[in-house]
Amino acid sequence: MGAAKPQKALARFLAPGAVPGQRVLLDPEESHHLQHVRRLKEGAEILLLDLKGHEFKGRVQRLGRRVWVEVLELVREEAPKAPELVLGLPLLKKDHLSFLVEKAAELGVSRVILYYSRRTVVKPGPNLVPKLGARAAQSLKQCGRLWPLAIDGPKPLSSLAEEETLYKLVAYEKEKSLSLKEALKRIPSKPDKLLFLSGPEGGFSPEEASFLQQKGFLLVHLGDQILRAETAAFYLMSVAHLWFFL
Amino acid sequence: MGAAKPQKALARFLAPGAVPGQRVLLDPEESHHLQHVRRLKEGAEILLLDLKGHEFKGRVQRLGRRVWVEVLELVREEAPKAPELVLGLPLLKKDHLSFLVEKAAELGVSRVILYYSRRTVVKPGPNLVPKLGARAAQSLKQCGRLWPLAIDGPKPLSSLAEEETLYKLVAYEKEKSLSLKEALKRIPSKPDKLLFLSGPEGGFSPEEASFLQQKGFLLVHLGDQILRAETAAFYLMSVAHLWFFL
Repeated sequence: MGAAKPQKALARFLAPGAVPGQRVLLDPEESHHLQHVRRLKEGAEILLLDLKGHEFKGRVQRLGRRVWVEVLELVREEAPKAPELVLGLPLLKKDHLSFLVEKAAELGVSRVILYYSRRTVVKPGPNLVPKLGARAAQSLKQCGRLWPLAIDGPKPLSSLAEEETLYKLVAYEKEKSLSLKEALKRIPSKPDKLLFLSGPEGGFSPEEASFLQQKGFLLVHLGDQILRAETAAFYLMSVAHLWFFL
Repeated sequence: MGAAKPQKALARFLAPGAVPGQRVLLDPEESHHLQHVRRLKEGAEILLLDLKGHEFKGRVQRLGRRVWVEVLELVREEAPKAPELVLGLPLLKKDHLSFLVEKAAELGVSRVILYYSRRTVVKPGPNLVPKLGARAAQSLKQCGRLWPLAIDGPKPLSSLAEEETLYKLVAYEKEKSLSLKEALKRIPSKPDKLLFLSGPEGGFSPEEASFLQQKGFLLVHLGDQILRAETAAFYLMSVAHLWFFL
């Protein structure tokens, strides 16, 4: 008794365009979340992410289908992560993609490009990308990241291979000599940008693997165990985070 | 037309005690899987894992509630992975634990120790460990690993901390100076054994963190983003795999 109650963390909301000293109108989803999930009232303090590297304090001004929030002072700012990590992710079943997008947001990936290749069997639903985008946005709020995770595609493997960057790696289970670790050692410690490509269920065809090699990808192995497609994707993100961000 | 049909990979079954030249009786679960999921017939060729580092070819001899299999030649053998990686995993909700145990099997972890600590709220069901063991066994069959993944606990954090090993690391979000990468560089490249401890939802209390430090754990951070408990656990396994097995 008498001890200070631990201060509860303020809830974060997405507010693109927020500027201190002005007010901002939350979109219907964020407004719903504020009013009906978090049950906040007028006058409550919250945090606002402008998705351009800033976190502001805010105060709820008027509830409604769209909530008005007064934007107060800057709490935190962040430059975009360097290097820019781009993850090429095969179409997998929706639950796996959704999970992986959440992890990509947590682990500092800048952009996910969904792709399909010869052995892809999953058909993307019409709302796949918007749904993944929503999951990524929720993940930002949870992990405190200040820049959005972009989600592109789905596009064919051939067009993903055109992505402009000096450093491209692809995990390929038939590669036996070059490990991911050895390949990482060949890359400067602070490249501008890096493309990591994770393989599809059933793997790449030999033609696809040699096509990627021609396009400048380093083919790397992840050891002698067979990893599931979702394991390999998560593995690449974790290792890239350790290697470039720690 | 005319091209050779690609040979379908033989299905793997668990057969502890299998010895070439003898026959072995599969347990009811494996027998069910063979007959009713894989729909194999008498005479079919399969692969057998003895869970002691050997993969044998086998031939189905007699179907039934328990299937008899003739054990043929050795196909592959493997020494246990070195270093021995032990992962201390907090009690999380069942789906997350099940996922993480599957990944631990794929990524060469030797043993998972489930633990509970001050802020643990999840109550383990009575069949948690057997169920996780079954999931791990299925994962072995899929990824081709030849040694089992042991699952211990749940036990209190204090008793897990007594685990005998020279090298112990714990991911602690309040640690600000030592990163996991720097800590790994302090460890010999081929230690005998390593204990990785992943934090619970809500984190360790400051008392727990200093207790672990007294017990010889290096406290390490995983960057400035807040990772969910399941993300951090997977991250530790992936990074340990890269660092010690690639």
